[in-house]
Amino acid sequence: MRIEIIATGSELVAGKTIDTNSAMLARLLGKFGLEVAKITLVGDPEEQIILALNEAVGRAEAIIITGGLGPTQDDRTRFAAAKVFGQPLIEDPGSIDRLVELFKLFRREMPESNRVQALFPENAMIIENPMGTARGFTLENQTCLALFAPGVPSELEAMAEASLVPMLVEKAGITETIASVTLLTFGHTESGLADDLKDFEKKYPKVELAYSAKFPVIEIRITARDPELSVAEKNLSQARAYLDEKIGGYVFSQDGKTLAAVVQDLMIARHWTLALAESCTGGMIASAITDIPGSSEHFIECAVTYSNDAKERRLGVKKQTMIDHGAVSKETAIEMAIGIREASGADIGLAVTGVAGPGESEAKPAGLVHMALSHRAGQIHWENRFPGDRRRVRVLTAHSALNRIRKFCLKSS
Amino acid sequence: MRIEIIATGSELVAGKTIDTNSAMLARLLGKFGLEVAKITLVGDPEEQIILALNEAVGRAEAIIITGGLGPTQDDRTRFAAAKVFGQPLIEDPGSIDRLVELFKLFRREMPESNRVQALFPENAMIIENPMGTARGFTLENQTCLALFAPGVPSELEAMAEASLVPMLVEKAGITETIASVTLLTFGHTESGLADDLKDFEKKYPKVELAYSAKFPVIEIRITARDPELSVAEKNLSQARAYLDEKIGGYVFSQDGKTLAAVVQDLMIARHWTLALAESCTGGMIASAITDIPGSSEHFIECAVTYSNDAKERRLGVKKQTMIDHGAVSKETAIEMAIGIREASGADIGLAVTGVAGPGESEAKPAGLVHMALSHRAGQIHWENRFPGDRRRVRVLTAHSALNRIRKFCLKSS
Repeated sequence: MRIEIIATGSELVAGKTIDTNSAMLARLLGKFGLEVAKITLVGDPEEQIILALNEAVGRAEAIIITGGLGPTQDDRTRFAAAKVFGQPLIEDPGSIDRLVELFKLFRREMPESNRVQALFPENAMIIENPMGTARGFTLENQTCLALFAPGVPSELEAMAEASLVPMLVEKAGITETIASVTLLTFGHTESGLADDLKDFEKKYPKVELAYSAKFPVIEIRITARDPELSVAEKNLSQARAYLDEKIGGYVFSQDGKTLAAVVQDLMIARHWTLALAESCTGGMIASAITDIPGSSEHFIECAVTYSNDAKERRLGVKKQTMIDHGAVSKETAIEMAIGIREASGADIGLAVTGVAGPGESEAKPAGLVHMALSHRAGQIHWENRFPGDRRRVRVLTAHSALNRIRKFCLKSS
Repeated sequence: MRIEIIATGSELVAGKTIDTNSAMLARLLGKFGLEVAKITLVGDPEEQIILALNEAVGRAEAIIITGGLGPTQDDRTRFAAAKVFGQPLIEDPGSIDRLVELFKLFRREMPESNRVQALFPENAMIIENPMGTARGFTLENQTCLALFAPGVPSELEAMAEASLVPMLVEKAGITETIASVTLLTFGHTESGLADDLKDFEKKYPKVELAYSAKFPVIEIRITARDPELSVAEKNLSQARAYLDEKIGGYVFSQDGKTLAAVVQDLMIARHWTLALAESCTGGMIASAITDIPGSSEHFIECAVTYSNDAKERRLGVKKQTMIDHGAVSKETAIEMAIGIREASGADIGLAVTGVAGPGESEAKPAGLVHMALSHRAGQIHWENRFPGDRRRVRVLTAHSALNRIRKFCLKSS
């Protein structure tokens, strides 16, 4: 089935607004194996919409047209539709009643201009809009089904999920159900994950695997389709077990939670408290933790000790340690972690010290980071040489630190 | 002049990638008064590109086609172009030499597949690509000029500014020059700024004013156009003086620098040092400051004192102060600011304590923030009731704090 999308709006062709609607529609359709052949963006004027619509109607079996269904003079899509399909516009009494009701809810009189939103081509089928005044409609000729929908993203998305996509799925004769899950991973590259999972396609031909890199997190989405939902779910769970076996160590979340939120849940479940000592990340880890509502339940404090003097004064790092090994060293990181844990009385003290760049030296190159976790059971130290610029080094360091706390919690469950 | 854009890429029509290239091109063209009539997105296959190109060539006087100039089997744009314009593809020796040179720079042998990037239609004029291997080209017939360019956004944008837009501006016979400046503001709403500047259009009809909200910063771009550059610059500078008079107090940057970077420049110029005490922002201010290379020159430390105990232990806030007035109070903020300045020996101690939400009480509603700045000359206190969710409250607080340091520096110059 050849599907085309036409997005109308002068702000789109002027580049003032990015058209995200069409991509959203294409992704929703893609979940059912339906492909969009062409997306066209045109301005508001009626003749531009007519031209684009005439071309598409002659070529496609299904068209979605978005935008231009509002109450203003600029909104010309219903007029263009009436002309292309050769039907007069008729006022729909039910739609008038609904508009009056909606405005009552807003405690406003319905402006006369909104009456136009109750006009539909004679043989149109009206599509419900649960989120706004602009109802959509369908028109059909021998070869083509055209769906007209509003351009407001939230209204369009609700209408797409409830009506537009199901209509096209039905027209295409698709009867699939879908089961899917998205896993968030940290600590491995996309190509590394793909390598570990290179046999996946062969083993699970009915389950689709897709990667999406959102630095420094890589999302893995697996999707199973089948006419029977129970079969789709069984295929998904088998594939999921294989993923756990192969790359489970990198997965930190399967419900969209950030690493900081996962750490918070684990800490609170253990009635543990956390204190941080940050140097090169400069407060970024503390900021990520305190971004989560309820963080005061487990987070006590962070000492952002940027200067050596502050490391000594706040954390009790020995001057001699920094002279002998440098501020970026295993020894300093461990003394920082012990220092913040003892000063705060927290269960876990975590410290990072590194060279974020661009400044560096031969002995201490940009990207070198020493980290330590202190717990009453003892200290853990690890170091990394992270690639990238200052911003990337800091973000990777923060994620590495949080991930280590997560793993430490899991081992102590 | 009717201009159309064709963006090629199967990831675009599948909704996996949002096409931001076309909007970028439309905005750049719009600066010269050139309007895009239509934007078309098609997949990779050659026949789809040919179809879209044939339609556009018959209608438009100028077309920009992006994408499909890479070295892989999927990259079919040059082949489609050759067919639509009826010209054979010829290998360009200069382009081969350039590819070999580029790969030498990467310390790699040129893969055989890249040779295709030196193939151009016989009468094409090559367009330089300063940022990658995919050179563009132009083709022309009696009615239409077609410009072919790569789809990688950074490469396309550089090529658009250097070549594509100037070519279309020349074709359209436009001889304007442009002078413009972008001011970054904080502390006033977009509608508030617009209100303060409501006479601008009348006073400076030849200067264009545009707002762009990038929470919590609002950018104001003013642009003057004239055939003579000196006239454009004079008009711009007069409009700029008017802006300084009306809203100058909100402008913190005119060269794109962040608030934290502006503060850093001011602090270093005064040989001053800074220490922070953060509660509700939880390290966000410190993180913004240490995001700027060279921050160690002025930034000593930050105490993220989330618990009351930490405020007492790290900053010497009196227990009785927090009992009498609460942790979120003028009195606590001032003691925090003094405490961090004295402990660190910094010239400026800055403290914030507030209710980020969603938790709140009647006396201390979400969004209430007390801030204080301590300097040897004395203490400044201010409070705000910021609107919005946790994230917005924290971001507004961090900006308010940095902006106060900026203003304090400027008064002490």
